[in-house]
Amino acid sequence: MNAEARSGCPINLSMEELGDKWSLIIIRDMMFGNRRHFRELLTQSEEGIASNILSARMKRLQELGLMTAAEDPSHKQKVIYSLTEKAIQLVPVIAMLGAWGRRHLPVTEDLSIRAELLEKGGPKMWEEFMEDLRVLHLGKRAKGAGPSVLQRLTEAYLVVKAKHARKGR
Amino acid sequence: MNAEARSGCPINLSMEELGDKWSLIIIRDMMFGNRRHFRELLTQSEEGIASNILSARMKRLQELGLMTAAEDPSHKQKVIYSLTEKAIQLVPVIAMLGAWGRRHLPVTEDLSIRAELLEKGGPKMWEEFMEDLRVLHLGKRAKGAGPSVLQRLTEAYLVVKAKHARKGR
Repeated sequence: MNAEARSGCPINLSMEELGDKWSLIIIRDMMFGNRRHFRELLTQSEEGIASNILSARMKRLQELGLMTAAEDPSHKQKVIYSLTEKAIQLVPVIAMLGAWGRRHLPVTEDLSIRAELLEKGGPKMWEEFMEDLRVLHLGKRAKGAGPSVLQRLTEAYLVVKAKHARKGR
Repeated sequence: MNAEARSGCPINLSMEELGDKWSLIIIRDMMFGNRRHFRELLTQSEEGIASNILSARMKRLQELGLMTAAEDPSHKQKVIYSLTEKAIQLVPVIAMLGAWGRRHLPVTEDLSIRAELLEKGGPKMWEEFMEDLRVLHLGKRAKGAGPSVLQRLTEAYLVVKAKHARKGR
């Protein structure tokens, strides 16, 4: 990768790794939805990612050191995918991107409640969220006893989603 | 654009607008280099953008409301390009992306000093920088008397660049 880099600018190098329409979406689904198997990432995709694109992007994310693959001990034939520390540290980028998107783009309420909470929670919440992700993806031992940030975000999302479902949306 | 949106998720919508290898690079050059003419954006590009790609991306950035074009009063035949408020509000995203890139990617010192200063400056500096950009791009009246954030960033960049030039790099 490095040999082909267009320049040593951090924004340029970041866009060389993440500047496509799907990579950050896959990372988002692993991060917020804890989707860890290929099939979940494929069938639960809100954006309807195609199988061949998902497969190619996941291969590239592994080459870039953003994702790892391992045999899932609970499913003999399945591979479980994990985010790396490098990918987990994208939380502040995703929080700021979500904040910008909420302000300037035609988001829907159910799919933006988590971005709203992350923005309001600020750097302290992002750090806690990254700790949750280290527990889930890197096998780090959990520290806190209360509900994790991921749980809180997921619950808020489900509440808003249910509200819209009742309205027949 | 909206009719084709894959979902109403803020991260998805953001990547639909900015998820390519060049859009954010062009915004970066207008933001940090104050490059306002097509020719400057083309010939001073650190990444060597091709003329047809630059042209297509600039057209799209205008359609997305991230950039405006106007006749340059000082050059009869030239068009001057400006960032919009929507683009200016990408400063925190770019600051966080630069911070991530500096930590995880093989950046060069000269092209990452501005990202370093922006990260250290935090939200207060980003707000000041956005105010500078509103003066330059939106014609807002300047408030402060001291050197602007853009000036400070540019000076730091030039110092590091000169240091490397002396070393024969």
